[in-house]
Amino acid sequence: MGRAVVNADDLAASIAAKMRADEGTGAAWGIEIEEAREGYARIRMTLTAAMLNGHNIAHGGMIFALADTAFAYACNSRNVVTVAAQASIVFLDSAREGEVLVAEAREAALAGRSGVYNVAVRGEGGRVIAEFQGYSRTLGGPVLERGG
Amino acid sequence: MGRAVVNADDLAASIAAKMRADEGTGAAWGIEIEEAREGYARIRMTLTAAMLNGHNIAHGGMIFALADTAFAYACNSRNVVTVAAQASIVFLDSAREGEVLVAEAREAALAGRSGVYNVAVRGEGGRVIAEFQGYSRTLGGPVLERGG
Amino acid sequence: MGRAVVNADDLAASIAAKMRADEGTGAAWGIEIEEAREGYARIRMTLTAAMLNGHNIAHGGMIFALADTAFAYACNSRNVVTVAAQASIVFLDSAREGEVLVAEAREAALAGRSGVYNVAVRGEGGRVIAEFQGYSRTLGGPVLERGG
Amino acid sequence: MGRAVVNADDLAASIAAKMRADEGTGAAWGIEIEEAREGYARIRMTLTAAMLNGHNIAHGGMIFALADTAFAYACNSRNVVTVAAQASIVFLDSAREGEVLVAEAREAALAGRSGVYNVAVRGEGGRVIAEFQGYSRTLGGPVLERGG
Repeated sequence: MGRAVVNADDLAASIAAKMRADEGTGAAWGIEIEEAREGYARIRMTLTAAMLNGHNIAHGGMIFALADTAFAYACNSRNVVTVAAQASIVFLDSAREGEVLVAEAREAALAGRSGVYNVAVRGEGGRVIAEFQGYSRTLGGPVLERGG
Repeated sequence: MGRAVVNADDLAASIAAKMRADEGTGAAWGIEIEEAREGYARIRMTLTAAMLNGHNIAHGGMIFALADTAFAYACNSRNVVTVAAQASIVFLDSAREGEVLVAEAREAALAGRSGVYNVAVRGEGGRVIAEFQGYSRTLGGPVLERGG
Repeated sequence: MGRAVVNADDLAASIAAKMRADEGTGAAWGIEIEEAREGYARIRMTLTAAMLNGHNIAHGGMIFALADTAFAYACNSRNVVTVAAQASIVFLDSAREGEVLVAEAREAALAGRSGVYNVAVRGEGGRVIAEFQGYSRTLGGPVLERGG
Repeated sequence: MGRAVVNADDLAASIAAKMRADEGTGAAWGIEIEEAREGYARIRMTLTAAMLNGHNIAHGGMIFALADTAFAYACNSRNVVTVAAQASIVFLDSAREGEVLVAEAREAALAGRSGVYNVAVRGEGGRVIAEFQGYSRTLGGPVLERGG
């Protein structure tokens, strides 16, 4: 029998889980998915010593990497392979070793093969660490095969 | 006796070396400094399995992280502590496991406490993987104590 | 007698009106304020022949200029003089002569002297023309003197 | 008889001149082309009262518009219709009424249909007003028909 039709949010959650499982960075960075639905993803990461710069605060590259990961899950959530074309980030506050960062990606716009996603990165107490805007382009083909 | 005056490029090289040694990310990512001088840094990194996304190509977060590291060395090269305020990246091509990426940061402008740096990330054969523009702000204080 | 205390949204509306009246671009571009409140501004502009590029569609510079104007009203809404430090824009669709463009700016984050605002530019039928993210810095001093 | 083959830089200059002549903004903003060659454009604009914000300094939208115009000439210089997909700008200094601004666009990278251009905007005395990075996509078809 064919697999039952799933709703859009369940599909998005399955896609994010598969992306997380398949990527080398997911395990390396300790990415945990809090919630993933159509056009949306919220993930977390705990800052380790290997993620710090020489001032003992989170390296900007890791803050971006977390935001970019949430962006990737959100922009692939409709099950069409989609990649980052460009992204911009504003760094607003520092974060320290052991702190848990949460990145929340929301879809701002879709137009043809293009999409724009806004991602907020927050630390403890909900203070804002960075704001990110990502521009995606769909390549086509499914992220997750839906089968029989 | 006091330490001899060093020229600007030698100081910049010492600063980059110190930043590389002090940061957790330097060892974690295998950052190697090819050249660092005033307003300029060129570094390299070999892509490992832990740096790949689910398509087995370099995660955009790691491409950014490499560019951001070169930017950090270049914008601190005058020995005043300087941080990234914002950065933007355009992703132009993919890179695969084992490939060596080189990021080259050049100073585009300085004005008061602000600076702008353009960083090119290239892969094998010199093809362009990404172009990055970083906006820095000086905080003040030395990166490297110069002493007697 | 002293002027009565105004609420935050009324103050923001007065600030936007003053900025619009004082700026040369406001009249030149035909900027109309639809709504301005704390951390928010929505404005409109009708595309004239003088705003078109050689393909007879809106010049990207004018689309940015509209978004940047909404950003300026929103980031000054708390009555502290605030300027744009950086902005990024993604162009998603074209717009034609005579079309009315609406830019809607929303505050995404505040941290110390920094702020981040997301601005959507839409054309007829509500289709998205561009998405913009602006990074502001407060300079200090009031935009609007509140007097007695 | 067929038209003689032109070299790449002469073609680029002809394309920029045609774009300038065809665009409504060219006359409205008083754009003057100083130099245009393959992958490069340098243009100037004098700041009028209609280009100022409420602080009597150049509106950020006009600074962007000038940079974006130089970017457009440079990215179309190979005679394939090319549009802006995204752009980012850092504002470094203010400029006043009557000041002449010069925008200089240089090609940083080409990869497939994508291009990246860095644009510096300078004011009097050569001080830097803004740094801009633009991301272009080619659509195809000639900007300038080459005929017989």
